[in-house]
Amino acid sequence: MSGEENLLLIPGPIIVSERVRQAQAIQSLAHTSPEFIAIFQKVLIDLRKLFKSDDPKDQAIVVAGSGTLGWDITASNLVYPDEDVLVLSTGFFSDSFAECLKVYGGKVDVLSAEPGDVVPFDKIEQQLSKKSYKVITITHVDTSTAVVSDVGKISQLVKKVSPETLIVVDGVCSVGVEDIQFSNWGLDYVLSASQKAIGVPSGLSIGFLSQRAIKKAENRPVQSTFFASLKKWLPIMNNYEQGKPSYFATPAIQTVNALKASLEEILDSGFSLDSRFAKHAETSTKFKKNLTSIGLKLVPVNEQVSANGLTAVYFPPGVKGGDLLPLIYKKGVVLAGGIHKDLKDKYFRIGHMGVSAIDDSRGDLDKAFKIIKESLTDLGYAP
Amino acid sequence: MSGEENLLLIPGPIIVSERVRQAQAIQSLAHTSPEFIAIFQKVLIDLRKLFKSDDPKDQAIVVAGSGTLGWDITASNLVYPDEDVLVLSTGFFSDSFAECLKVYGGKVDVLSAEPGDVVPFDKIEQQLSKKSYKVITITHVDTSTAVVSDVGKISQLVKKVSPETLIVVDGVCSVGVEDIQFSNWGLDYVLSASQKAIGVPSGLSIGFLSQRAIKKAENRPVQSTFFASLKKWLPIMNNYEQGKPSYFATPAIQTVNALKASLEEILDSGFSLDSRFAKHAETSTKFKKNLTSIGLKLVPVNEQVSANGLTAVYFPPGVKGGDLLPLIYKKGVVLAGGIHKDLKDKYFRIGHMGVSAIDDSRGDLDKAFKIIKESLTDLGYAP
Repeated sequence: MSGEENLLLIPGPIIVSERVRQAQAIQSLAHTSPEFIAIFQKVLIDLRKLFKSDDPKDQAIVVAGSGTLGWDITASNLVYPDEDVLVLSTGFFSDSFAECLKVYGGKVDVLSAEPGDVVPFDKIEQQLSKKSYKVITITHVDTSTAVVSDVGKISQLVKKVSPETLIVVDGVCSVGVEDIQFSNWGLDYVLSASQKAIGVPSGLSIGFLSQRAIKKAENRPVQSTFFASLKKWLPIMNNYEQGKPSYFATPAIQTVNALKASLEEILDSGFSLDSRFAKHAETSTKFKKNLTSIGLKLVPVNEQVSANGLTAVYFPPGVKGGDLLPLIYKKGVVLAGGIHKDLKDKYFRIGHMGVSAIDDSRGDLDKAFKIIKESLTDLGYAP
Repeated sequence: MSGEENLLLIPGPIIVSERVRQAQAIQSLAHTSPEFIAIFQKVLIDLRKLFKSDDPKDQAIVVAGSGTLGWDITASNLVYPDEDVLVLSTGFFSDSFAECLKVYGGKVDVLSAEPGDVVPFDKIEQQLSKKSYKVITITHVDTSTAVVSDVGKISQLVKKVSPETLIVVDGVCSVGVEDIQFSNWGLDYVLSASQKAIGVPSGLSIGFLSQRAIKKAENRPVQSTFFASLKKWLPIMNNYEQGKPSYFATPAIQTVNALKASLEEILDSGFSLDSRFAKHAETSTKFKKNLTSIGLKLVPVNEQVSANGLTAVYFPPGVKGGDLLPLIYKKGVVLAGGIHKDLKDKYFRIGHMGVSAIDDSRGDLDKAFKIIKESLTDLGYAP
């Protein structure tokens, strides 16, 4: 592949569209200029649509950072010290979220799924009945396992058993690819990042908050953070959305502009949000079928818990990841290794979000499948 | 100015060079790919040069965020709860740094300078003798007043009176324009951001740590942050600098690449770092002289405390900021208002960092002066 660009198919950062790439290349703007205010305003309004919110009292928030910062925002704003939090864990990222919550003084119980599966509803219901949890966290798609949790159904359960519990969703690997109905499901905070299905360069923490979450952050008795403080950021976001200049810390001007471009591609392309999700599902299903058709086994235990933005697949017997992934890389496709603690060296991951999943004319996933198959054959694997 | 690009001359974000703009526009890369590791490695090595460090045990750190995040990094890693911190305040940003330190449990004493001046050395010496401060913070250039503190001399003083005290420098508005001698001065943490004199789009917290600071962060008895945790980030930075893949939170790939380009322009252009500082000083002196030659008064009380990266200047009697700045903006130059609490509506600020200060052929500052003068005349001002 010398001289050519490698085909990037990891579960984020993802390939960005040409329009987004150009939007990332604008010259600097003053963060309080009319030009930038108009950009940020459009972003904050469009995020309401992306999250399917119909309550004007909800608020989007975009801060220079990464998905991880959303965990700190949760832990330092929405969980008061010594409050009980229930973490549903479907892998590495759920567990790291739990670690972050503990740092800020949350009393965390983790309900862990079997690797490749989700936490069973009855276990969640049972646990919610045991303690009065102030917050529950759901990792919508754990990027380590490619397992998707049914956020809609879990939220229904929470509303039934423990309606006071704030529902926080880690949507880093789901926003833009899996359906999220913020208002219908009664969510309180969905945290995400720019570099996955939202289709923007890395560098932004993107979130969406309910009025209930906002109130809780505003009434927090002690402040535990400065940079991640919602008390600081909410008035800023509100001002930008109203078209007014505002300052707490300098936003990532160019990346916010790239986010505007991507949201416009997602929302205003004549292709509805639901068609976008459907197209991702179609691409994902086809790709997964291709892999299983040559005898490979997926990490998620069934189709229902299989995420649409990425695929996690076991190395077949006799094939070592240390041989396979470098070979695939040499042939021009960049994939990711495994990071689940129990399965670490046993599987690998392919991302299919954004242009690679949506634009069939690119042929990205077909190429990836061809090269995976070819490389397996090179290594002596026969299905 | 319809159809044309406005001339951005605020004290950050600044105009970036064409090469940096292109570097910001690269397609996404995997954060653990050899390509990106090579980019990040070069950045971390070059930052040693920018900070004039000769101790390999020092460590640069680059995290998606902003300058403000550097305050949280200080407060949540280098100051243990209930430790005494001395903040030297030369304006709004120093005071905000103090506020951040308190959030994380630092016991903060603020020594405030008169507006437009620095804190006198004898007061600093006196205060250092009163208490055993674990950390002192110096805002090298407070962007609110354009006042530069003599970090070299203050550090000497600290070494003499209280050698155990960690020296933390807010270099957001100084790194890349004012001389910083990390090793010679015995500094412990200099925090900065990408969008000022480093000449990169906003979106990065950039810092440099001494071994003493690193030890203190590593030995911290309680963790107070996750996203800003040096315990988490230091091994990552170390790995990247060694050319090894590493992950804690996704770096801002494109902006790190822009940083690489800018550092190469700064360090490898045949123009030494000291000549860069000298050129900034020359541009600054000429611009300030132009302003005072038409009877304007600068906020810094004398030349010695005047920063080279920006100018803060009072509106002349009879001229309102609400009239002047919009008029200048209409004529195509973007300047900034005042933000010092005592002087808020009395002055305005012009940034002159990076290409605008260095590349005479652009004529940015001459144009700005011409338009300021013209606009003042339009408003009836006669020197």
